[in-house]
Amino acid sequence: MNSPIYQTEDTICALATPAGTGAIAVIRVSGTKTYAMLEKLFHPYGNIDFSAIESHKVVLGQLLEKDKPVDEVLVTKFTNPHSYTGEDVVEISCHGSWFIQQEILRVLMDNGCRMASPGEFTLRAFLNGKMDLSQAEAVADLIASNSATSHTIAFRQMRGHFSKRIQQLRAQLLDFAALIELELDFSEEDVEFANRDKLIDLLDTMSTELTQLIESFAMGNVLKNGIPVAIIGKPNVGKSTLLNAIFNEEKALVSDIPGTTRDTIEDVLVIDGVSFRFIDTAGLRDSDDTIENMGIERTYEKIRQASIILYMFDAGTPQEEINETITEFREKIDDNDKRLILIANKIDLLEEIPHNFKNLVELETLFVSAKRKENINMINETLLKSVSVGVEEANQSVVASSRHYQALIETLKSLEMVHQGVHQNVSGDLLSSDLRAALHHLGTITGEITNDELLGNIFGRFCIGK
Amino acid sequence: MNSPIYQTEDTICALATPAGTGAIAVIRVSGTKTYAMLEKLFHPYGNIDFSAIESHKVVLGQLLEKDKPVDEVLVTKFTNPHSYTGEDVVEISCHGSWFIQQEILRVLMDNGCRMASPGEFTLRAFLNGKMDLSQAEAVADLIASNSATSHTIAFRQMRGHFSKRIQQLRAQLLDFAALIELELDFSEEDVEFANRDKLIDLLDTMSTELTQLIESFAMGNVLKNGIPVAIIGKPNVGKSTLLNAIFNEEKALVSDIPGTTRDTIEDVLVIDGVSFRFIDTAGLRDSDDTIENMGIERTYEKIRQASIILYMFDAGTPQEEINETITEFREKIDDNDKRLILIANKIDLLEEIPHNFKNLVELETLFVSAKRKENINMINETLLKSVSVGVEEANQSVVASSRHYQALIETLKSLEMVHQGVHQNVSGDLLSSDLRAALHHLGTITGEITNDELLGNIFGRFCIGK
Repeated sequence: MNSPIYQTEDTICALATPAGTGAIAVIRVSGTKTYAMLEKLFHPYGNIDFSAIESHKVVLGQLLEKDKPVDEVLVTKFTNPHSYTGEDVVEISCHGSWFIQQEILRVLMDNGCRMASPGEFTLRAFLNGKMDLSQAEAVADLIASNSATSHTIAFRQMRGHFSKRIQQLRAQLLDFAALIELELDFSEEDVEFANRDKLIDLLDTMSTELTQLIESFAMGNVLKNGIPVAIIGKPNVGKSTLLNAIFNEEKALVSDIPGTTRDTIEDVLVIDGVSFRFIDTAGLRDSDDTIENMGIERTYEKIRQASIILYMFDAGTPQEEINETITEFREKIDDNDKRLILIANKIDLLEEIPHNFKNLVELETLFVSAKRKENINMINETLLKSVSVGVEEANQSVVASSRHYQALIETLKSLEMVHQGVHQNVSGDLLSSDLRAALHHLGTITGEITNDELLGNIFGRFCIGK
Repeated sequence: MNSPIYQTEDTICALATPAGTGAIAVIRVSGTKTYAMLEKLFHPYGNIDFSAIESHKVVLGQLLEKDKPVDEVLVTKFTNPHSYTGEDVVEISCHGSWFIQQEILRVLMDNGCRMASPGEFTLRAFLNGKMDLSQAEAVADLIASNSATSHTIAFRQMRGHFSKRIQQLRAQLLDFAALIELELDFSEEDVEFANRDKLIDLLDTMSTELTQLIESFAMGNVLKNGIPVAIIGKPNVGKSTLLNAIFNEEKALVSDIPGTTRDTIEDVLVIDGVSFRFIDTAGLRDSDDTIENMGIERTYEKIRQASIILYMFDAGTPQEEINETITEFREKIDDNDKRLILIANKIDLLEEIPHNFKNLVELETLFVSAKRKENINMINETLLKSVSVGVEEANQSVVASSRHYQALIETLKSLEMVHQGVHQNVSGDLLSSDLRAALHHLGTITGEITNDELLGNIFGRFCIGK
């Protein structure tokens, strides 16, 4: 049997809306037999002939199985190629009982449909040229997006901003590759069709652009998955209270909408559209010892993963002691690429806030009372400020997929080989081989180059019905 | 402030599809400002003017908030009165990320929408005369339906079969009431506009019909909520093993469809479209004592709720002992309206099945091995046979709502008063008062008579978005 990935002869069906009970649910059917199947099962009210229904027109009627009504439904035809998959598609909007949803799927399957595999509708859209591979991946990212920035990145990628640029670069490189291969055909005559200076220019432009994209991944990845934040400090300094205070402030905003569970916001906090992922440093939190002495490498490992560290201490601690502790801590972790923010807690116990503190430790210090929820909004603002560059960048082309990141690095490597080759005046054969490698890696991003395994990996991540 | 129940000036929005993440989600907007709002927010591709989009036509475009894309969506206008609510409605089909769903709802609310209360779309459909109250209730039942019979009952009720008959009967009664009230206006003249013989005829017809409907409730209620089945018997007779065997046989069928949880089938088993609700008689099951001696009234109470009792015993028990036990048991429970079926378990331990058994106890006896899953299908068939009449009845008008049941009983009572009154030749005043009471109760079923509290009770049961 063929790999199901390429099985596009079948007519497939799946639930398109979330599993469960709702007011309505939508079932999607796609494939060559869609219309024949629905013509038999769907009976529009008002004696309308199914074949006479125009594309994109919503029609009310009954879905009948052997004259027995399965449900009263709204049916919409999307005639190829003007559909999501590029095939004939029908969307059935039915009553949202789980029983009815099952029944309609059963009836469709009894009439020749196959249940769609995960991502199979989008796979067909890709195979039918409705979108390239990077756009298809963005659909999955869009569905998984949980913050304004991850949503913006996915949305831009889905609209094709990134793909278009990659395709343009690839097309230019392809021209050169073709010329160099042409030289090979005339190798006896020692001609040079491909202008080496122009090739070097293109290689330079591409390297600069690819390097920018590769560098954007660090930001893209954290914007997509949440910026890692660690709250650390000695026991009883109030870390849990602070975490609760931070989450409580925001919780009300989120739980306005029914169905948002506490689970999803306990780890990730979205402030003004940017998600912050709080790293669990429980080992450190529960330790009876000071951070300098705990010696648990695993906890340090977690701290190293953080982009932002909130270092918490008791505001009443003597300033020299803090200074010493922080200096030691900074030596232990490489904090060059991190933002270290000090949180002086328990200001409710102080008579006045020590003004000269900042000069001592040379780090931004926020004075708060986690218990009384005083100045908690300052922490949110500071977290946001720490990534303000990133939020802007989300409006540029940002690489947020590790697959694209890997492919860009491989492309850059091959281009550097080409660059060296031109300088060293190597043979057209070698140049051509490196150019082909670069074209290959670049092509995997948009799906001009692809294979079963790659497609399987990408579409396997999708939910069924998309 | 007015009761939100009648607040129909607002434009409302809600998620129509189940909460969660899916390929797509649908958000519904209804009210006078729907089109003005969407004209501002929705930007169709291809420079189409929003106002030029015809009703029921699906259009692709972007939902923008201050030029920033919120999502790429499909939008469908349903122009009043050709919509679910009878108002201007727009359905927005968006990417199924929970974040996007929240965002779109937020944008709609920021632009003047109010989040719909539970059932508010259907309430508006009722207030705008798109359906009567009994049909509206059927929508909620349809969404909650979990078997073919509960689905059939709700579907028929939604299509209006039951309402139409109730309305016809009420209209006929209303004619008589009007004539009798006319007599009151001419009371000085002692005229008789309303023919008393014809009234008696109508009352007889109505009483017969109402009685049938009232009687159908016992069946309608169990078909809707599941036919209660109790498995009882001495400890270690194999009740749990049997329950597992019964559920395992059917489980495979149900779990074909992803998302069906074990929870939903542990208590209710659907055989050929009919649901059986297995009553927990744990107290009895765990008892170390025999059923005759357990004396726990609560357990007997549960047994009394059952329509079908599966009485289980060890097939090796001496037949006289069984006979005695069963006779005693039948004396303790009133089994006139119940079906008592004997299950002789552990036939795997017997050399041969005692053929003369049935004659002894005069009850259908099934010989099974729960452990080896032998003859389990016989139990399913017997359960189904026990309600075969009921399944047929589901195709008739069946009362499945306790609210309707109560209203029918009250109507019948009032009609009997009218009947008596006519025979006793009471004054038109008294007749008229009883007729009005009957008309009132009958009117509450279809919603010709209604009030805030009634509507609140009914639509409060709905999910948000319907």
